Amino acid sequence: MYVILVYDISEKKVGKMLKLCRQYLNWIQNSVFEGEISEVKLKELINLAKEILDEKKDSIIIFSSRQEKWLDKKIVGIEKNDLSNIL
Amino acid sequence: MYVILVYDISEKKVGKMLKLCRQYLNWIQNSVFEGEISEVKLKELINLAKEILDEKKDSIIIFSSRQEKWLDKKIVGIEKNDLSNIL
Repeated sequence: MYVILVYDISEKKVGKMLKLCRQYLNWIQNSVFEGEISEVKLKELINLAKEILDEKKDSIIIFSSRQEKWLDKKIVGIEKNDLSNIL
Repeated sequence: MYVILVYDISEKKVGKMLKLCRQYLNWIQNSVFEGEISEVKLKELINLAKEILDEKKDSIIIFSSRQEKWLDKKIVGIEKNDLSNIL
């Protein structure tokens, strides 16, 4: 399946969450990731994310689609997914 | 069409962008919006957003799908779209 993941978590946990999500998905903007992932891998990611986030304060939203072709993507402004920026 | 809009813009413009996007879409998380919108209205939103953002530094990504049913949404942690939080 194809997913878009966005998180809104407290600043001090951002680094950990970024690192985790990048192991499963492509980083495309600040706190936004996308990519093809299996249901099993997504569950694994969610379980690991739950260990990082505070479920009373933090939030992750995952949109999923069975096929990437059902989604169009348009970028206005700069593309921020240049990995060299954060390596 | 059904869209998911995420922005990553400099802090001082966030208020303006939030206000603009909320006129067209539902705010669901920090810098994330979703909703049903016509192509004409989306173009209008993008044009107004371009007046706010700096296209060399800021970024907006819009995912669109012809039908909402093609997308599933899963929330981990709290739902932040309670409008009372920001009114």
